[in-house]
Amino acid sequence: MCRSRPHGRRHALNFANRTPRADLVAAFTPDPKEKAWAATALPNTTVYLDYDEMLKHPGLEAVVVATVTTAHAEQAIKAIEADKHVLCEKPLSTSVEISQSVVDAAAKKPHLKVMCGFSRRFDASYRAAYDRMDQGAIGRASILRSQTCDKLDPSGFFVAYAEFSGGIFVDCNIHDIDLALWYFGQDSIVKSVVAMGITAVQPELRRHKDVDNGVGIVEFWGGKIAYFYSSRMMAAGQHDMTEIIGTDGKLAVNANPQGTLLEMHEPQGVRREIPGDYYGRFEHAFVTEAHEFTAACLDNTRLPFKLSGAVKAVEIGCALQESLNSGKKIYFDETGRRLEAPKL
Amino acid sequence: MCRSRPHGRRHALNFANRTPRADLVAAFTPDPKEKAWAATALPNTTVYLDYDEMLKHPGLEAVVVATVTTAHAEQAIKAIEADKHVLCEKPLSTSVEISQSVVDAAAKKPHLKVMCGFSRRFDASYRAAYDRMDQGAIGRASILRSQTCDKLDPSGFFVAYAEFSGGIFVDCNIHDIDLALWYFGQDSIVKSVVAMGITAVQPELRRHKDVDNGVGIVEFWGGKIAYFYSSRMMAAGQHDMTEIIGTDGKLAVNANPQGTLLEMHEPQGVRREIPGDYYGRFEHAFVTEAHEFTAACLDNTRLPFKLSGAVKAVEIGCALQESLNSGKKIYFDETGRRLEAPKL
Amino acid sequence: MCRSRPHGRRHALNFANRTPRADLVAAFTPDPKEKAWAATALPNTTVYLDYDEMLKHPGLEAVVVATVTTAHAEQAIKAIEADKHVLCEKPLSTSVEISQSVVDAAAKKPHLKVMCGFSRRFDASYRAAYDRMDQGAIGRASILRSQTCDKLDPSGFFVAYAEFSGGIFVDCNIHDIDLALWYFGQDSIVKSVVAMGITAVQPELRRHKDVDNGVGIVEFWGGKIAYFYSSRMMAAGQHDMTEIIGTDGKLAVNANPQGTLLEMHEPQGVRREIPGDYYGRFEHAFVTEAHEFTAACLDNTRLPFKLSGAVKAVEIGCALQESLNSGKKIYFDETGRRLEAPKL
Amino acid sequence: MCRSRPHGRRHALNFANRTPRADLVAAFTPDPKEKAWAATALPNTTVYLDYDEMLKHPGLEAVVVATVTTAHAEQAIKAIEADKHVLCEKPLSTSVEISQSVVDAAAKKPHLKVMCGFSRRFDASYRAAYDRMDQGAIGRASILRSQTCDKLDPSGFFVAYAEFSGGIFVDCNIHDIDLALWYFGQDSIVKSVVAMGITAVQPELRRHKDVDNGVGIVEFWGGKIAYFYSSRMMAAGQHDMTEIIGTDGKLAVNANPQGTLLEMHEPQGVRREIPGDYYGRFEHAFVTEAHEFTAACLDNTRLPFKLSGAVKAVEIGCALQESLNSGKKIYFDETGRRLEAPKL
Repeated sequence: MCRSRPHGRRHALNFANRTPRADLVAAFTPDPKEKAWAATALPNTTVYLDYDEMLKHPGLEAVVVATVTTAHAEQAIKAIEADKHVLCEKPLSTSVEISQSVVDAAAKKPHLKVMCGFSRRFDASYRAAYDRMDQGAIGRASILRSQTCDKLDPSGFFVAYAEFSGGIFVDCNIHDIDLALWYFGQDSIVKSVVAMGITAVQPELRRHKDVDNGVGIVEFWGGKIAYFYSSRMMAAGQHDMTEIIGTDGKLAVNANPQGTLLEMHEPQGVRREIPGDYYGRFEHAFVTEAHEFTAACLDNTRLPFKLSGAVKAVEIGCALQESLNSGKKIYFDETGRRLEAPKL
Repeated sequence: MCRSRPHGRRHALNFANRTPRADLVAAFTPDPKEKAWAATALPNTTVYLDYDEMLKHPGLEAVVVATVTTAHAEQAIKAIEADKHVLCEKPLSTSVEISQSVVDAAAKKPHLKVMCGFSRRFDASYRAAYDRMDQGAIGRASILRSQTCDKLDPSGFFVAYAEFSGGIFVDCNIHDIDLALWYFGQDSIVKSVVAMGITAVQPELRRHKDVDNGVGIVEFWGGKIAYFYSSRMMAAGQHDMTEIIGTDGKLAVNANPQGTLLEMHEPQGVRREIPGDYYGRFEHAFVTEAHEFTAACLDNTRLPFKLSGAVKAVEIGCALQESLNSGKKIYFDETGRRLEAPKL
Repeated sequence: MCRSRPHGRRHALNFANRTPRADLVAAFTPDPKEKAWAATALPNTTVYLDYDEMLKHPGLEAVVVATVTTAHAEQAIKAIEADKHVLCEKPLSTSVEISQSVVDAAAKKPHLKVMCGFSRRFDASYRAAYDRMDQGAIGRASILRSQTCDKLDPSGFFVAYAEFSGGIFVDCNIHDIDLALWYFGQDSIVKSVVAMGITAVQPELRRHKDVDNGVGIVEFWGGKIAYFYSSRMMAAGQHDMTEIIGTDGKLAVNANPQGTLLEMHEPQGVRREIPGDYYGRFEHAFVTEAHEFTAACLDNTRLPFKLSGAVKAVEIGCALQESLNSGKKIYFDETGRRLEAPKL
Repeated sequence: MCRSRPHGRRHALNFANRTPRADLVAAFTPDPKEKAWAATALPNTTVYLDYDEMLKHPGLEAVVVATVTTAHAEQAIKAIEADKHVLCEKPLSTSVEISQSVVDAAAKKPHLKVMCGFSRRFDASYRAAYDRMDQGAIGRASILRSQTCDKLDPSGFFVAYAEFSGGIFVDCNIHDIDLALWYFGQDSIVKSVVAMGITAVQPELRRHKDVDNGVGIVEFWGGKIAYFYSSRMMAAGQHDMTEIIGTDGKLAVNANPQGTLLEMHEPQGVRREIPGDYYGRFEHAFVTEAHEFTAACLDNTRLPFKLSGAVKAVEIGCALQESLNSGKKIYFDETGRRLEAPKL
């Protein structure tokens, strides 16, 4: 999930307190209240209400962009142009073209580290799954199922948010799409895309051409299929999970969600609680992300994945969202070019 | 799954040995070897090599049809016409029209009990899920995810079988489709259908217009979606599972497959085995089915579900299979009539 | 657990309806109400209010003793003397001497099959564990942990019952003790025994020298230890579980109790229900027991375990109960003879 | 577990890198190789080969003692006398008297924060269990089962280590004993203690009066029982787990051990890996411990538990170890004074 503001604070705290090789020298927020919060929480950090001013902070080497999605690309590009390394939250933009403009800006500064923050790439469980697959443990990976499911927020915050989020496939399933590109390979070419959805709890989402439950299928040339589910109405908590199914085995990440290792035996049965939000699930992945991004900047080592994949993920997410709204399946040829009718 | 012959034997043994109110007086097999097996295994049963002869067996009151799928409808109709109650294995036929002819035959004999053997309807876990939903525990059921996944049979038996099976969506996902009709209500009207698939382990399946891994989505009018996965290549064993997702909660059946209650702690980790086939998973459901069908015949009580749903399930399965092979999404209007373009 | 009467009915129904090779020709109950129940539930069975009369029923070949524990031994011996095969519920008696008298009676009729009903020996999970151990999968079995824990019965029935039950270690842990003799070998010789207990929910149990929670350790000569827990106050349901720990691995049976395969995702978390009583957990083991006992009688094949073990189990159970009440550890020499001080 | 050296390094890294409010200004090791390691790993830390010299480091405010167990008490006392806050690894000593001397030293300096490092007290799962119990969710806590089980170390390191460890009940079960004092209350008075053990994989342990598998029971006045298991021979990994059983429910911590959230579906079944050592299980608890100890020192707030409990834990651990070696049960009166015979 991607509810902007608290997420920026978490990044700030992680870089300030849990990333020994990084110093959080400066931060930006447009919100004076948040600036006040930072005065206490981030005592060694200068907080700016103007992003451009922050970029001029002496000694600043790298920038983490974790503002609202609509600001990601512009701020990332400004930082790149100011010769800063950039870790930009996902998605780069809800527009493919604008996302591409970040990649283009980065391409002009090959000495900079520019990364899109796909946090699951830094999660120990997803990495263990990748390593198993990479060792050949499941044969040829063929089917990927992945879901991003948020706990129901009764405040309905996500309705207003939907105006700018790009829709559920771009906002939520972008993670799952990125996982498909990771496990199947970033060079995978989409053959067709289809999506459907419903508004089970928030009918007003249709105003923003969005849904609160979406199901999509992405078929790749070469005999691979990824299918996705996203939801805004989980009762028990955040449940993001993924299966990678190969010709010789299957890897399941978080099929059994859990928070702590506590199980409660009660008259109603045996119960466990699960994380209430994505941060409860991925906290340690965000810390690892901060460590590795910092190390790549300081040591000039390779980032774990390419920025261009982030554009591809947005492209697929937008196609799913389009299919959801048009009701039509969308086709592509072997080069990835859009077609009007299926090519079998 | 539905590999015909052994399944007939299981039904026979269940009715002979585990269904106290039923006597298995007669049985039919076209195979002399199987007749020899029955001489020992079913000592109180007369075995016929001719189905029509069997129907004339004195005192015969009910017939279980568990032959190859292509014979289901004809044998069921003959039994109905001979005034026997009928429990017919799924699917009634791979053809919608032929399936309907069974319903039509049954309609002429309203005093007979005619049921399609959707075994999951008799499974304790699925029933517990239904009861919870029925009590309102999950609010309005909105999304259903269900899969039928067989352990890989390296003999490739299912390739030859695919010629007559109707394809993976009719043969395997028929169960999942039936579950959608159960949990969403049998009157649910399909709005659109789309399916994709691959041949990851058995490319020859394409000869029979089939795949070994299929993903499909069925959208219903009224804001409900069911999505399905079927596979012939599970490494660990049979894994059939279902989630019913409502506005207030989720019910998951068999998300954690297991065989016995044994866990093995070994140098490689903690391991459990899971059932190798559908019968290992659903054995007790088949026994319950035999008990309840017998009771309905003897006591003239209502069957737990209507025969007409079996036609609807085949209809949806065939539409998914068609979409798989045409590459096109298929649309229906609010009355269930087929359309050429999406109706939004 | 061992609450007598309903258990007798379950055995009767299993032999009548679920054991094809057996006919339940006769039954005994001292209770006219139960006789009335049987008239409907067991239409093909003659019910006697006099045990001795029942033994004279024409054609009777085998007897299942499932009355109150205090009657087990006398009824079993009478049946043996009347030349009937006997399946006697556990324990044979709460007295070692009386238990031995059953073995002695059986020894005089070696053509008869006489078995003590240790139901867990017929459970698929316990058998899978035994097979793994027997294959050498865990090296040398060294530690066994086992528990028999009943769901709290707020009626406090077990308090009155405690007068005759022999106490929690004889009534409940007898199963766990039998498992230790199974997995460690029936020839294992006890070196020392110690037990402690509390009355957390039913202080009146002390009148019968019993407790509602007991912990005991049994040390065997040769470097093996079994330790046990029994409880009458589980909130969630019956939770009987066992671990067999070897030098190369561990086998855990029912570490994760569950009833059906349903998991409920609710605002409070993820929940599953577990069986409410031992029959919910071991129903299929009882059916298997009935099948195998019947087969042994009809085919004159060996029973799966020796009757003498049942005396040994009572002996150990009584020693634990004595230790509980005396507060003292009890010692034995290498021949199993009791000692006054530890032999190290 | 408590294998000294690497553990010291982990504490050092946690305070240096993961505890924002602490600066690791100085460190001590008797080992020049480790000093060399620190030169790289702890660039901002002065490393001493002489403990007393380290204590004189300018500005030093607090000391973490994580050397070999035999040095704990002396170093802790020296630090206290030098007016430093102290976090001392468990156990304070293998001797009750020496442990008490640390408490006595601390008592003379009430302005100092002196804590024994019972890491599980900082674990999120154990804390969640405590909170539930504290809210009354399980009624009156009555039975506690707890185990500390290490993965088998084929090098047999723990044999040499056993000479100084105090034995398995002092070295391993000390954690479980501390948990009993936490959940039952630190004022609980021991009524009796008994322990048994075996040497299944390392017979040489008997030279040091130790075992590789131990089972012990601790009975408390007031009707509570704790029972413990410790093992050095787990095949799959570290498995520390605890159950707190109350009159109205049960809390289970880590009944289902797991490493990451990855499950592998393979031809042999479904498998998961579990942590290989205590640090894999408790890493985050150690970080929390460092945070909270630091906060207590800087803010002069209360530590989460009293130092005196650490003496009591050693006392119980030593009694268990004595019972193991004498073969005798040990008794105490209501004031905790040792008795020669049971007081019932």
